[in-house]
Amino acid sequence: MTNDQTIVALATPTGTGAIGIIRLSGPEAITIANSVFKGKDLTRQASHTIHFGSIADGDMLLDEVLVSLFIAPRSYTKENVVEISCHGSAYIIESIIKLLIKKGARSAKAGEFTLRAFLNGQLDLSQAEAVADLIASNSKASQQVALNQLRGGFSNQLQALRDQLVQFASLIELELDFAEEDVEFANRDQLKKLINEINRVIGSLIRSFELGNAIKQGVNTVIAGRPNAGKSTLLNALLNEERAIVSHIPGTTRDTIEEVLNIQGINFRLIDTAGIREATDTIEQIGVQRTMEKISQSALLIYVYDASEMTEKDLNQDIESLQKPGINMLLVANKIDLLNGAPILLYFPAYGFSNLISISAKEKLHIDDLKSSIYNAAIKSQLNDDETLVTNIRHLEALQKTEDALSRVLYGMDSVTSDFLAMDIKQALHYLGEITGAVTTDDLLENIFSKFCIGK
Amino acid sequence: MTNDQTIVALATPTGTGAIGIIRLSGPEAITIANSVFKGKDLTRQASHTIHFGSIADGDMLLDEVLVSLFIAPRSYTKENVVEISCHGSAYIIESIIKLLIKKGARSAKAGEFTLRAFLNGQLDLSQAEAVADLIASNSKASQQVALNQLRGGFSNQLQALRDQLVQFASLIELELDFAEEDVEFANRDQLKKLINEINRVIGSLIRSFELGNAIKQGVNTVIAGRPNAGKSTLLNALLNEERAIVSHIPGTTRDTIEEVLNIQGINFRLIDTAGIREATDTIEQIGVQRTMEKISQSALLIYVYDASEMTEKDLNQDIESLQKPGINMLLVANKIDLLNGAPILLYFPAYGFSNLISISAKEKLHIDDLKSSIYNAAIKSQLNDDETLVTNIRHLEALQKTEDALSRVLYGMDSVTSDFLAMDIKQALHYLGEITGAVTTDDLLENIFSKFCIGK
Repeated sequence: MTNDQTIVALATPTGTGAIGIIRLSGPEAITIANSVFKGKDLTRQASHTIHFGSIADGDMLLDEVLVSLFIAPRSYTKENVVEISCHGSAYIIESIIKLLIKKGARSAKAGEFTLRAFLNGQLDLSQAEAVADLIASNSKASQQVALNQLRGGFSNQLQALRDQLVQFASLIELELDFAEEDVEFANRDQLKKLINEINRVIGSLIRSFELGNAIKQGVNTVIAGRPNAGKSTLLNALLNEERAIVSHIPGTTRDTIEEVLNIQGINFRLIDTAGIREATDTIEQIGVQRTMEKISQSALLIYVYDASEMTEKDLNQDIESLQKPGINMLLVANKIDLLNGAPILLYFPAYGFSNLISISAKEKLHIDDLKSSIYNAAIKSQLNDDETLVTNIRHLEALQKTEDALSRVLYGMDSVTSDFLAMDIKQALHYLGEITGAVTTDDLLENIFSKFCIGK
Repeated sequence: MTNDQTIVALATPTGTGAIGIIRLSGPEAITIANSVFKGKDLTRQASHTIHFGSIADGDMLLDEVLVSLFIAPRSYTKENVVEISCHGSAYIIESIIKLLIKKGARSAKAGEFTLRAFLNGQLDLSQAEAVADLIASNSKASQQVALNQLRGGFSNQLQALRDQLVQFASLIELELDFAEEDVEFANRDQLKKLINEINRVIGSLIRSFELGNAIKQGVNTVIAGRPNAGKSTLLNALLNEERAIVSHIPGTTRDTIEEVLNIQGINFRLIDTAGIREATDTIEQIGVQRTMEKISQSALLIYVYDASEMTEKDLNQDIESLQKPGINMLLVANKIDLLNGAPILLYFPAYGFSNLISISAKEKLHIDDLKSSIYNAAIKSQLNDDETLVTNIRHLEALQKTEDALSRVLYGMDSVTSDFLAMDIKQALHYLGEITGAVTTDDLLENIFSKFCIGK
């Protein structure tokens, strides 16, 4: 992976728009742009300036454009960067890119601009990944998580801890050189303390993944209940209030059509699984078991019942069959408008529920409260202030492998020789480094950046 | 139509891309941008400079961005313009636009940036329309026609002629004030000379429309021939050579699926009408008549025949039934590889053909020559060097109405009174002015700019 070539790509989406931005990066970016630009001499202009002129292939004019200059290292890639703002015709954009390639640039690969930003030290690896997350963000929460990661996020913290661990590793390496003298350069108590500190941070990050992933992907939320419990009315009541941000997402193979509800910046993917309806209808143990699998893949289960008709026994039975350890469940007593002052059959303390609310979906009573309850049940109860969230499965795996390696270090500290200890520490360093990019392989980079769009 | 509001819109296509550009224009563009920008004070920066920073809604960060400043009148609209280059997430773009609207901007209507450029004298009307054409351009020729028009094109020339006509109009108005004295301030001979000059230019522009439109829309080209003449092989031979720019255009209601062939920058829309096949097969007069209607809507008819089998009589008959005044016809003698040195049955001089060529589609003999012939038959023979082309139906209509009004002036010059003459000249001035925008109505502007995309 070398940076000696100048790369070019369309940075804006394809399709017809008012303008398109063609981006060049590399040592020859400015001279290549200048060779096709009629206007000022671009090689003599200051960084961060914009110049009007035209792009011509010999005598043939291609377009009137604005050219923005970013002189190394004051650019996204830390290389010379030129952005050509042209009219948004696919034909014109293609003509200009072809011309720039004729003049010595080559087509950028997916994510190659950001790869260069990483290789040139502008971003670490988790920041580079945050750029892709930012582009893909579709809610306030996912945008905030990506921005936080782009601005350093947990990688600064991990980097500092890793630096300390590197010191211990080198001290232990030193012990190996003096193996016959049986000396200890690395203070074992301090090492234990550091490893415990790293494990504390890593453990918290690993635990944050479930929530972070929910924020990034949306919270899978199953609505369950017997027939006529008022599920559809409830769905409509929830969605009508926020019609603008309701959308039908055509499902991937795994998914069915879902309704997306945005509450306080979090997308909740409301899933209507037919299985649940049947299962709770027949209360058949095998059916419920199958349904439970679907529920277990969700972050939240909203169980709705008809407060005006439900018996204590049936409710008890439903909850017993649905409630399992690790399932986040919200109980909703519906149709309170039909009670006429009778007491609401809310709950059976034996199950220790704290998430319950009474509403009327039909009369739209307490719907805002319900939304707050949904948000609190799925997000707030799990969210510490200022907590950094892991949203990337690659990071999660590296963190888990780090945790494993550090466990081996702790376990073996008093029993194994320095060379085994050094090996386990090196492994931990390796996995920690993979997160920030201190340790990379071509495969790893290829894997990360190939998921980017062209032009980023 | 006032310019006192600051407008905002996404200028790049919607969809996920590396970056999106949000454009602000108006008196408050810079102060509004500055109110949400964390970074340098944008109100104190020079025009045509770029600034890195972030966009925040109060304490909440929305994105890290680059902001480009264009200070009035050095901008596209001649107003203060700010372009915010943000990460290309639809959610982020929407958040930023909403924030800017909250801070005092309003959503731009379709074409409103270009409308302002027109109202502020940056572009005349035909140039503004060229911007839309440029964005829609899909071939070298249509791009060149639009660029030529954007750079002034025929509107400069028309404007100069119109200015002269305005002088005559005012002299004739003066005559009306002295009507009782029967004086002539406007020299009738000079007026005639000017009108003839204008008519010459207008006539040439009107005639250019057919070609200009063909270039803009693509040249409708019908390929006709008897069964087994080798039409399909010919089509493949033509398309295989330029596979990269062949595309299937899903037809509008009027059109069927077409193959597009690009020759020297011109798109030829090759149309395979079933009717022609049947008609030339049966040589049935009614069928041919129906087919002729389709052919008459095309700019070029390519008639293919099997040179190894066709008889003089059949060829004569086909040509007679297809050839009509005003139809641009190219004769192609196919399958010359089967002749084995026998003379090629090429042509019957009675019809005065100059467009004929012999090929073998199967062996790909003379295909490049055929392409040149297609180009020459449709374009070159009709194209004068440096001729300005009219491609816009609105311009054509205004030119035709100008021509009518000027005919009335010429016709009435010696017979009608000055007041009628003045009225006809005013009409001609009106229609000429509609082309360049010297005369506009809100309806006209609404009609033109509503066809633009938002953000331009």
